[in-house]
Amino acid sequence: MPQVVARRLQGLITRGEWKPGQQIPSQRVLSEQLEVSRASLREALQTLETLGLIRSEPGRGTFVTYGQEVDRGPELRWRYADSFSLLDVFQTRIMLESQIAASAALVAEGEAVEALVAATDEMQRGWEAGDLVANVEADLLFHRIVVGQCGNRMLQVLYDNVAGLLTETQRQPIPRTRTERMAESLAEHRALIAAFRARDPEAARAAMAAHIRNTALSAGVGLAP
Amino acid sequence: MPQVVARRLQGLITRGEWKPGQQIPSQRVLSEQLEVSRASLREALQTLETLGLIRSEPGRGTFVTYGQEVDRGPELRWRYADSFSLLDVFQTRIMLESQIAASAALVAEGEAVEALVAATDEMQRGWEAGDLVANVEADLLFHRIVVGQCGNRMLQVLYDNVAGLLTETQRQPIPRTRTERMAESLAEHRALIAAFRARDPEAARAAMAAHIRNTALSAGVGLAP
Repeated sequence: MPQVVARRLQGLITRGEWKPGQQIPSQRVLSEQLEVSRASLREALQTLETLGLIRSEPGRGTFVTYGQEVDRGPELRWRYADSFSLLDVFQTRIMLESQIAASAALVAEGEAVEALVAATDEMQRGWEAGDLVANVEADLLFHRIVVGQCGNRMLQVLYDNVAGLLTETQRQPIPRTRTERMAESLAEHRALIAAFRARDPEAARAAMAAHIRNTALSAGVGLAP
Repeated sequence: MPQVVARRLQGLITRGEWKPGQQIPSQRVLSEQLEVSRASLREALQTLETLGLIRSEPGRGTFVTYGQEVDRGPELRWRYADSFSLLDVFQTRIMLESQIAASAALVAEGEAVEALVAATDEMQRGWEAGDLVANVEADLLFHRIVVGQCGNRMLQVLYDNVAGLLTETQRQPIPRTRTERMAESLAEHRALIAAFRARDPEAARAAMAAHIRNTALSAGVGLAP
């Protein structure tokens, strides 16, 4: 579990040990206190920042934003803004994951479909329990399962080449900025599962495209239908 | 020009210095005779083989097939058969290049459009002169110009990641197996140019999809519309 550290830090915040607006300890101090590597800690802090629980301010430090009003657009937190726009990456996600979903719908086995159901259930459970890290991890798992079912090996390789960037768009602080989005997102996952059960590639393509388009919209990115 | 060596060898074949069915000299002998590196020679021989001018038979040698009847399906010559099927790669090409064409149509400048016209003219000229190497090089150039015009940097990176595989599908021995295909292919290039001039992304997407789908069909690969 790569996100064990992120969940521990999330616990400090949601239990109120770290208060809204408070500056958190330095990475050096934290990695010693928690007995984790600097690399794991950095990854965990990035996850929490993209989820909108903390905010790093260059030259000042990192502060708890959970429990505070959200005052900035999510696009401002896009980690790769120097190399790729959020619009470009969402456009790529729609293209690639829609084609992958269509391909996967033709071959997905019952076991894989049940794994998609379990991931969506876990995504919902994490959300209801206020466990944003578990919520987003289950979301990422869902999309990885879909890719794993794709019969076109070349599309899988293409996805793996840019998976870091694509999955980053799933960690946008949507839960904090538009909470009603979560119910829609879960319903979209279940629509894709239904298309897989029906072995309907075009329904799967449309469900995945709608899901990512709506996700993009919540992140402030409008994409042509 | 990476294809200088391929064009020299092509000349030996089309001028009849190497006869149909004849075994060609070993790579060691050839690289000395032509004073080119083994790497350049190997690349040139692969180009000629995918164009259907020669055929390497493991354990026997390499033979001139130009001027002989075509007796094998083009899919048998697919160089990457061990890793990816031709179907998978064409499906990826349609997905990626159609999206790239739509994106490029929105931004392509007049100069780039003129470069597309020049590449298509050169493709036609190479075909009419029996210069298959020049023909396919101009075809590759055309597609590279389209990618270069794409406004989505992420799609460009994705394309570059797999460009070797994608462009390999453009070197199938189509000219030898279905010669009437060349006129269609040129017309499809010009349809894409017209969509660029009209700055019509959906027309560009459709033109590129049709072009690659028809190319696939000539290589024996049927793809759903």
